[in-house]
Amino acid sequence: MPPRRYAFGRADEATHPDSIRATLAEFISTFIFVFAGEGSVLALDKIFSPADYGSYGHGGYSHGDGYGRRRTDTGRGASDLVVIAIAHAFALFSAVAASINISGGHVNPAVTFGALLGGRISLIRGIFYWVAQILGAIVASLLLRLATGGMRPMGFFVSSGISEMHGFLLEIVLTFALVYTVYATAIDPKRGSLGTIAPLAIGLIVGANILVGGAFDGACMNPARAFGPSLVGWRWDNHWIYWIGPLLGGGLAALVYEYLVIPVEPPLHTHQPLAPEDY
Amino acid sequence: MPPRRYAFGRADEATHPDSIRATLAEFISTFIFVFAGEGSVLALDKIFSPADYGSYGHGGYSHGDGYGRRRTDTGRGASDLVVIAIAHAFALFSAVAASINISGGHVNPAVTFGALLGGRISLIRGIFYWVAQILGAIVASLLLRLATGGMRPMGFFVSSGISEMHGFLLEIVLTFALVYTVYATAIDPKRGSLGTIAPLAIGLIVGANILVGGAFDGACMNPARAFGPSLVGWRWDNHWIYWIGPLLGGGLAALVYEYLVIPVEPPLHTHQPLAPEDY
Amino acid sequence: MPPRRYAFGRADEATHPDSIRATLAEFISTFIFVFAGEGSVLALDKIFSPADYGSYGHGGYSHGDGYGRRRTDTGRGASDLVVIAIAHAFALFSAVAASINISGGHVNPAVTFGALLGGRISLIRGIFYWVAQILGAIVASLLLRLATGGMRPMGFFVSSGISEMHGFLLEIVLTFALVYTVYATAIDPKRGSLGTIAPLAIGLIVGANILVGGAFDGACMNPARAFGPSLVGWRWDNHWIYWIGPLLGGGLAALVYEYLVIPVEPPLHTHQPLAPEDY
Amino acid sequence: MPPRRYAFGRADEATHPDSIRATLAEFISTFIFVFAGEGSVLALDKIFSPADYGSYGHGGYSHGDGYGRRRTDTGRGASDLVVIAIAHAFALFSAVAASINISGGHVNPAVTFGALLGGRISLIRGIFYWVAQILGAIVASLLLRLATGGMRPMGFFVSSGISEMHGFLLEIVLTFALVYTVYATAIDPKRGSLGTIAPLAIGLIVGANILVGGAFDGACMNPARAFGPSLVGWRWDNHWIYWIGPLLGGGLAALVYEYLVIPVEPPLHTHQPLAPEDY
Repeated sequence: MPPRRYAFGRADEATHPDSIRATLAEFISTFIFVFAGEGSVLALDKIFSPADYGSYGHGGYSHGDGYGRRRTDTGRGASDLVVIAIAHAFALFSAVAASINISGGHVNPAVTFGALLGGRISLIRGIFYWVAQILGAIVASLLLRLATGGMRPMGFFVSSGISEMHGFLLEIVLTFALVYTVYATAIDPKRGSLGTIAPLAIGLIVGANILVGGAFDGACMNPARAFGPSLVGWRWDNHWIYWIGPLLGGGLAALVYEYLVIPVEPPLHTHQPLAPEDY
Repeated sequence: MPPRRYAFGRADEATHPDSIRATLAEFISTFIFVFAGEGSVLALDKIFSPADYGSYGHGGYSHGDGYGRRRTDTGRGASDLVVIAIAHAFALFSAVAASINISGGHVNPAVTFGALLGGRISLIRGIFYWVAQILGAIVASLLLRLATGGMRPMGFFVSSGISEMHGFLLEIVLTFALVYTVYATAIDPKRGSLGTIAPLAIGLIVGANILVGGAFDGACMNPARAFGPSLVGWRWDNHWIYWIGPLLGGGLAALVYEYLVIPVEPPLHTHQPLAPEDY
Repeated sequence: MPPRRYAFGRADEATHPDSIRATLAEFISTFIFVFAGEGSVLALDKIFSPADYGSYGHGGYSHGDGYGRRRTDTGRGASDLVVIAIAHAFALFSAVAASINISGGHVNPAVTFGALLGGRISLIRGIFYWVAQILGAIVASLLLRLATGGMRPMGFFVSSGISEMHGFLLEIVLTFALVYTVYATAIDPKRGSLGTIAPLAIGLIVGANILVGGAFDGACMNPARAFGPSLVGWRWDNHWIYWIGPLLGGGLAALVYEYLVIPVEPPLHTHQPLAPEDY
Repeated sequence: MPPRRYAFGRADEATHPDSIRATLAEFISTFIFVFAGEGSVLALDKIFSPADYGSYGHGGYSHGDGYGRRRTDTGRGASDLVVIAIAHAFALFSAVAASINISGGHVNPAVTFGALLGGRISLIRGIFYWVAQILGAIVASLLLRLATGGMRPMGFFVSSGISEMHGFLLEIVLTFALVYTVYATAIDPKRGSLGTIAPLAIGLIVGANILVGGAFDGACMNPARAFGPSLVGWRWDNHWIYWIGPLLGGGLAALVYEYLVIPVEPPLHTHQPLAPEDY
């Protein structure tokens, strides 16, 4: 069941079983996504880790300074980007698919923020989702650290040769693309059968965007995805851009779609209650 | 809502809210696609850029002369092709999905030209789409240049060892495959539930075709995709083939599909007005 | 419109517009698939070709002896396999999607043979499809040779260290998996909404199987895919296994599915005419 | 037809044609999946095998100690992971798609165990499925060994530098993500049109998870997938974690989804017989 649409929220929303189920679904789906996403970054680290060093024989290997930015003299860069992009794309697709009928499949505070700005969820539900998403990301990062024998999560930071403002701008643009896609395929009441492939469109635009931004600032597009690993790995460089960038980009996409693209039949949109099937 | 089908256009079309929304959707979707597509090319450049040079230690590295044609002594070629093909495939899928219900999901002047030849959109709407697609590509290229700290977009050109006529022929054939797929899955009035996966079929044929043509001429198949980066990066070598090739190939595909494949029930096609559900 | 199901064929079938359209659709879709599939193999050759040799500086490079079996001292093998698998998977998906409503989306003589054995198409339609598929593959190979400035198509052959009988067995098993998937998702009258993703399931099982068989015998699974490049590149080593293997494996899958998996409601299957919606 | 839902099973279930067809479908789909999955691991071995050694010229090559953990001085690690993840993801998607209407598309004893715990299949059907899945995996491994000229299957084991308990924990977490996705997209009676993409969500979460766990413990998530190659390759190191881990993680996911996420409309869930369309 997709999220009900109410501008202000219902009095009983916080304790309604629907809200609790939706919040649980956001928690688990964000957990699944962050475990796979951050886990793929650590997996690359494991492949080329000091324990395996002997079989390399290069002195010149330098650890990547964020994902997709690993530098070696063996040309691993492009393959690493593919690993990370596919891991995020596939996992986000599945995580959104697993929650879209229950919570709307946000799995991302920037998406929740956009849905809130567009009046698609209530403030209280938005807060529930945010807490669930952040907790899911933290638990995923903790379990990753435990399961990998203590590897320190990487999180996100800006690549050398790129300024923080460039990373900030990238996060805005990339998250705009993501949330616009979410709106068009998963929230637009007139999306029709397109909703069937909404989770895939959402997952794959994240994959494509990582192939763009991964080499520059990691292409986060999701504050929870950044916060969990940053907390557990205790790395806070450039952290603010992974909150403010996605919220700005996602909010802008929501406003553009909600107020410029949707309103073709104004009466339906503003005055008529929507039946569940319309979502 | 898919594009209405009229051979000549309606008097009020230019100012109809539907046209404006559709044009906006084409602008944003082309922006998303070109940002990811050209961005992935620049990202590969960034991974192996002079700033990172020190950790390489090769003198023999030569910058790629177009995408997928990067040459090094570390065998990066195939991985680079994968990065670029996946970035285009995934981003185009999402961009088409995000606009197919609003504008028909063209995101490509060659698709719009084919739909025009086949009588599926009016001339005025076609012109609107073209302008929107080209503007979207330019804005994407400008923002890319800004966000990457001034990297010059690459655009498309023919690889060394291949003549311009070979590239021209490739663009014709590859765009034929693309627009034929668009017609069969997204425009054919009898496509039925196949329409659900139309955006994916369109995105992935572009990905497959890049794996073919990327090493030869870049596999553009989309004049807007070529024009934006060429303008912002000011590189015009071979540029004409990325306009004439896609238009020829796309137009041919549209004519073949419209006049040879569709007309199984001639009365429906030529004399009967189609209800929106038929699209 | 999916293929009509008749054990013996109709008198007017050869000249019925439906048959002609379906045959044309098979021709074009096979053309698209073989152009992308064989083209991706040539693209890898182009990336590492003599023209680019200077920037490599290796003497030890040996041309691959079939796809996915390129050997170099730069570890390109796995990335090459990914390129070829994705090119085939994505292109086949799109080619099947573009023809499934018109011809049933065979794009492969082994699929047509299976459908014939299972009584799903008539003999005359099967012959039409075979001719169209083989012609599509030949035209694709010719155009590839032309567009690449004369590169000789590779086709398929058995890798060194593997006997022809091993390759033969692999073709049987891999094509069994492919045609079983085709039957379950695209032919089974009770497939329901699963039919929507049939083209994707068909494309991706081919992609997965190439990652298995590519290193051993190329993982053809499709006589037309083998024949076109073999004819144009005039390479006939081991060619028979790419005909007999797929036909045996595909035929076996069709019989297993048709006579062991489908018949849950025997009356429906054997005595009742099926309405078009049942396909 | 998806699996009927009964807590205890019917008296005639073992001999009912439906059960036999479903069991056959599980056998064949698990065969297809394991052949492609384990086959892709052997294919990588073939690419870099002693037979090809001469063209390498490295003394330092060490065989991978599980998949995705191949170590060389040519940086193949990340590309190998991509090959294995895509082979599993694509093949599992197709295998689930080919059986979801007949058997529910489990293709994994851990999924069957979860469905059993959640009361979604009967014990007798669960046993049938287990036997079929294990047999499918064994036959696939045997045929692989035969078709590759005797290559010994690798199976799964824990990477050096990682303890068995870490691998065990990883299997629990990764299988939790998989079975949760299965439940949400393929079993939940209210999944609606989401069921159309269930096979894809299931396949791709496995692909993503392999990119995480592949470098540590192989990311099995499926006891049959581990058992077949272990038996035929006779490698039993760490084998227990690939049984107990997936069963624990899968069982936990089933209980969480069944008892915490689904019960929004308790009467429907506990007292009302479901029509086939509800599945």
